[in-house]
Amino acid sequence: MPSTSTTANSLTVILPDGSRKQYERPVTPYDVAAEIGPGLAKAAVLAEVDGQPVDLGSPLPRQGDVRLRLLTKKDPESLAVMRHSCAHVMAQAVMRLFDGVQLAFGPTTATGFYYDFALSHPLSEDDFPRIEAEMQQIIQANERFERIEMPRGEAIQLCAELGQDFKVEHLQTGLGEEQSVSFYRQGEFIDLCRGRHIPSTGHLGTAFKLLSVAGAYWKGDSSREQLQRLYATAYFDKKELDAHISQLEEARRRDHRVLGKQLELFTINQTVGSGLILWLPKGAIIRQTLEDYLRGELRRRGYQAVFTPNIGRVELYQISGHFPYYSDSQFAPIDLGDGERYLLKPMNCPHHIMIYKSKPRSYRDLPVRLAEFGTVYRYEQSGELSGLTRVRGFTQDDAHIFCTEEQVADEFRGCLEMTQTVLAALGMNDYRVRLGFRDTQSDKYVGGKEVWDRAESALQAVCESLNLPKMSIEPGEAAFYGPKADFVVTDCIGREWQLGTVQLDYNLPSTERFALEYIGPDNQPHRPVMIHRAPLGSMERFVGVLIEHFAGAFPLWLAPEQVRVLTVSEKSEGYGREVEQRLAAADLRVAGDYRGAKLGAKVRDAQVELIPYMFVVGEKDREAGTVTVRDRIEGDLGAMPFDAAIAKLRAEIDAKTVRQVAERSAVAVADCENQHEY
Amino acid sequence: MPSTSTTANSLTVILPDGSRKQYERPVTPYDVAAEIGPGLAKAAVLAEVDGQPVDLGSPLPRQGDVRLRLLTKKDPESLAVMRHSCAHVMAQAVMRLFDGVQLAFGPTTATGFYYDFALSHPLSEDDFPRIEAEMQQIIQANERFERIEMPRGEAIQLCAELGQDFKVEHLQTGLGEEQSVSFYRQGEFIDLCRGRHIPSTGHLGTAFKLLSVAGAYWKGDSSREQLQRLYATAYFDKKELDAHISQLEEARRRDHRVLGKQLELFTINQTVGSGLILWLPKGAIIRQTLEDYLRGELRRRGYQAVFTPNIGRVELYQISGHFPYYSDSQFAPIDLGDGERYLLKPMNCPHHIMIYKSKPRSYRDLPVRLAEFGTVYRYEQSGELSGLTRVRGFTQDDAHIFCTEEQVADEFRGCLEMTQTVLAALGMNDYRVRLGFRDTQSDKYVGGKEVWDRAESALQAVCESLNLPKMSIEPGEAAFYGPKADFVVTDCIGREWQLGTVQLDYNLPSTERFALEYIGPDNQPHRPVMIHRAPLGSMERFVGVLIEHFAGAFPLWLAPEQVRVLTVSEKSEGYGREVEQRLAAADLRVAGDYRGAKLGAKVRDAQVELIPYMFVVGEKDREAGTVTVRDRIEGDLGAMPFDAAIAKLRAEIDAKTVRQVAERSAVAVADCENQHEY
Repeated sequence: MPSTSTTANSLTVILPDGSRKQYERPVTPYDVAAEIGPGLAKAAVLAEVDGQPVDLGSPLPRQGDVRLRLLTKKDPESLAVMRHSCAHVMAQAVMRLFDGVQLAFGPTTATGFYYDFALSHPLSEDDFPRIEAEMQQIIQANERFERIEMPRGEAIQLCAELGQDFKVEHLQTGLGEEQSVSFYRQGEFIDLCRGRHIPSTGHLGTAFKLLSVAGAYWKGDSSREQLQRLYATAYFDKKELDAHISQLEEARRRDHRVLGKQLELFTINQTVGSGLILWLPKGAIIRQTLEDYLRGELRRRGYQAVFTPNIGRVELYQISGHFPYYSDSQFAPIDLGDGERYLLKPMNCPHHIMIYKSKPRSYRDLPVRLAEFGTVYRYEQSGELSGLTRVRGFTQDDAHIFCTEEQVADEFRGCLEMTQTVLAALGMNDYRVRLGFRDTQSDKYVGGKEVWDRAESALQAVCESLNLPKMSIEPGEAAFYGPKADFVVTDCIGREWQLGTVQLDYNLPSTERFALEYIGPDNQPHRPVMIHRAPLGSMERFVGVLIEHFAGAFPLWLAPEQVRVLTVSEKSEGYGREVEQRLAAADLRVAGDYRGAKLGAKVRDAQVELIPYMFVVGEKDREAGTVTVRDRIEGDLGAMPFDAAIAKLRAEIDAKTVRQVAERSAVAVADCENQHEY
Repeated sequence: MPSTSTTANSLTVILPDGSRKQYERPVTPYDVAAEIGPGLAKAAVLAEVDGQPVDLGSPLPRQGDVRLRLLTKKDPESLAVMRHSCAHVMAQAVMRLFDGVQLAFGPTTATGFYYDFALSHPLSEDDFPRIEAEMQQIIQANERFERIEMPRGEAIQLCAELGQDFKVEHLQTGLGEEQSVSFYRQGEFIDLCRGRHIPSTGHLGTAFKLLSVAGAYWKGDSSREQLQRLYATAYFDKKELDAHISQLEEARRRDHRVLGKQLELFTINQTVGSGLILWLPKGAIIRQTLEDYLRGELRRRGYQAVFTPNIGRVELYQISGHFPYYSDSQFAPIDLGDGERYLLKPMNCPHHIMIYKSKPRSYRDLPVRLAEFGTVYRYEQSGELSGLTRVRGFTQDDAHIFCTEEQVADEFRGCLEMTQTVLAALGMNDYRVRLGFRDTQSDKYVGGKEVWDRAESALQAVCESLNLPKMSIEPGEAAFYGPKADFVVTDCIGREWQLGTVQLDYNLPSTERFALEYIGPDNQPHRPVMIHRAPLGSMERFVGVLIEHFAGAFPLWLAPEQVRVLTVSEKSEGYGREVEQRLAAADLRVAGDYRGAKLGAKVRDAQVELIPYMFVVGEKDREAGTVTVRDRIEGDLGAMPFDAAIAKLRAEIDAKTVRQVAERSAVAVADCENQHEY
């Protein structure tokens, strides 16, 4: 239906409030803004035409109707565009300061941007002040970001003239299908770029900061040229930048790689291999305590523990479809010749399926819930590896549920409830559940439409009934094999981590895969639904997040050393050792510090090592049969009879009390990349 | 010093009682026996001259002194010789009954003998009666075993004439260094054979039996000819044969592979891989309960748990020396190209060493005791695989102790005591400790002579002080890297299993390997000693042995299902479920049988499934708040208040009571091959 307000040779601009403006001359969004008012013209940084982002200075069509939205720095979409413009300014500054700079790519990230350069000068933090100063010059000059479109052939010639070999290559290969490409120019700087950009460098202000420099490869390929990656960030508001910088500092203070070394929780040894964790005794206590706690929850909830090997024949993964399709992220097969090949298992499901299949199953046996702390291996690129959170070997707190379609909702509810219970026990009460549903336009999904519809509405109903703090439905985010729910947890400094997951699976039980069956009440074979679930995700990643969440100060029930006995003087060593033995006999994790050092020094050491409680003992305590309890957080609690002190600690352990989590900052950092699909 | 009683041309035979006989004519041991008395001449089957076994009919030297021992069937050495003679008789019978028989080898085993044949007729149990009848004929004919020596060339010619191609090949290659070889002949049968043999087939009697037939390869090489292996056994005494046969039947009844399937403890799936165990829920309970128990013992004894990955770079095993030297028994490396290669870890020691090395160690920190239920992989030939006891992946209850030389004795004592405690908890009180010491004549051992001497005498002193039921010192049985102690356990039907081990190691800490150090009180670096120890050996093998030891009827603390609630009639289902819930809440592993079936049938099912206790509940029980307790072994124990019944079971669990182990038979079967050297 044609719009009634349009004439053949004029343009009708419809604004968000429904008002209309008609033009017979060529106009840009900026012109429209200027017409509305000089304030808006100054504040606008970007426009959206019929839902598509465009530069403020780009010409609007000459006729027809367009819906125009003018965006200022208050609109969330503007931030990434401004940051990308800032990346161009940073590149311009680098080119002014150093000779022979070859530009690679300069995209934005979730929290900032970077630009990759090839240049002979090794960039370092010492260079940051003058690069920032040069950027400030460019901003003050308020250069306009000008879009220039041209045929690809001309673009290649231009880049060749500019001596930008990476851009030439990218035009020839990466953009080989394009007829026409765009450049953006500000001042003397011109860069091949899809856009969009803010109108001019003057909009950038002063809220930007260079952060770090790292190595990278051209197109991420380690056989290609090595580049220097300059990380930076920018905000419209200085306060937001400051908050981000302090969050980065807080994150650095909590960095689990640093704390893991300092507190002797884990180590990585290059002769053993990158991304392979050696859990040191103190870290192993945390992991084992978590596993024991989860085992209790699993038992209570009717799961059955199993153990399966870490390898399986390649044939198993050919049936599951994980080989050869996911070979890129797997360790190469172990080849014994004569066609006998094994894979390190990248997931536990095929093994659990073989246990399901080890005997005939009746509907009376369902649901079957098989649980395992299963150690799996995936070959992440070495550049992706980081401490406990990006590894090549990890232990999933895994389970697989085999159930009837009618049981799906109850089982899904059970999985979500268990995850809620576990997160609550760890004081992680700030999380959201992301329901990944299918894209109804796509045909990539396994299983009938009706089955998906029923499952998705059942899942949604379960979530709505569960009193979840936050929930979102994300169409198109399902795995091809079934809908899922992910738990995205916000830690105490506001960063988001994807941890637990619950995923329905219509694929592996299918005839094409493992052809799973159970005998129904009608005495006929039926197909079960499979659910993959892991409340923590993996022990490695979860403990990594926990270290950062607690900044290494674990709640009493998880603390590797729960109490330290400190003697006031050497005289009390005998009593100290007696107290230590009685604590150990009461199943508390205890150590003693009987050095001749001053009490103050011993207290300081225990504080630094984040020991939750100190039992200070002197001659008075010995005579009275007491201990003087010192709390890491609250300090001296005074003398208590020994049994009362133990009872206090025991109560705190049994309640899994989380006594202190730092204030969270307001800025969220997404880190959701290490999802484990099955 | 020449013997005073010898003249130049006469032989002096010294008998075990010290008496002497002098001969100037050629004599055989048989002649000496005959001279002593006709009874001895009839009973003698073998002789020992100066400690070496010889045939009774072999000529003695013409002069000098010889110590002669005449052996009858009562002497333990005679049994294997008789069995080997019986193997010749069996081969003779097979050649009489079938055409074109090619003889391979026919050795004795710990409990009998076999002979490998190539023949076109497929042997089966159906052939056993006529083979046994033919053997009986040969025995009745009382054919003499005649030794014939000849040069190797003539022997080849003889075997070629006989059409015995395997013997020709063996003479050409296997015995290629020999000048002269021996044959034995009885009747028409002649066989290349080193000997010794009994005097004649008549000594064999009737106490022999063919047992089974299996496939084999010539010289064990799967690329060579396939053979048929005929297993049999023989005794001097029919009663002993009968005892052995019933032990074999008892062993078959207890076969953990059969019980493992029947009781749903574990399964092996060819698509996952041979020798790789899938622990089913009930088996996993047993393993986990054992692991939890061991973890408690480890904690009490000052061990620190760690977790390490299942793979390591090949470089790690080049340092340890396990690669390439043990490649034959390892899975092939995972080759990622660019020299990045990983091995499935065949042992945990290199990983634990890297944890030891992750920080500087002082003498004050020692001993460091690192424990892990570490899953390792070794590539056993598929023919060697058997259920849980011969596998390709297994989890060791492993630990490594790093200590000073002065601490070795105490640490060794601690390891032995822990193994004693653990075996006692499982009702395995019949075991012997084999101390493997070095062969003082050999130079293959790592570490100084004085160090070994000190260690060996310390180890011996520890063992002597420990009140071990049996102990033997076996020189030459040490690993090249250090002395060791193995626990050889006799199960309830008298079979021996090598399980736990404690091994000193001077090799891995050495400069050539990992160059381990600690800083001594003198502020100088010193080298620690390493101890490898595993009280159970591996979870797989140990649980396999336990299944056979208990014939599947586990003590209450280990039983996968501890109690079953049985209702007298459907009326009591409500009370039954209440009892079940209360048992579960009391942490007992419980199931309920609420079928409408007769009580007798339910009891029978629970008995067959080896459930230790049944709580039978009817209306009277509901009214009185009681349960009628039925003990699998002792039957009906009458009604008890619910709390009293729980208390009874709890006490039995806490005490780890082993209530019933079958009578052991008198005959021992050795199975000590699956040792895990480090």
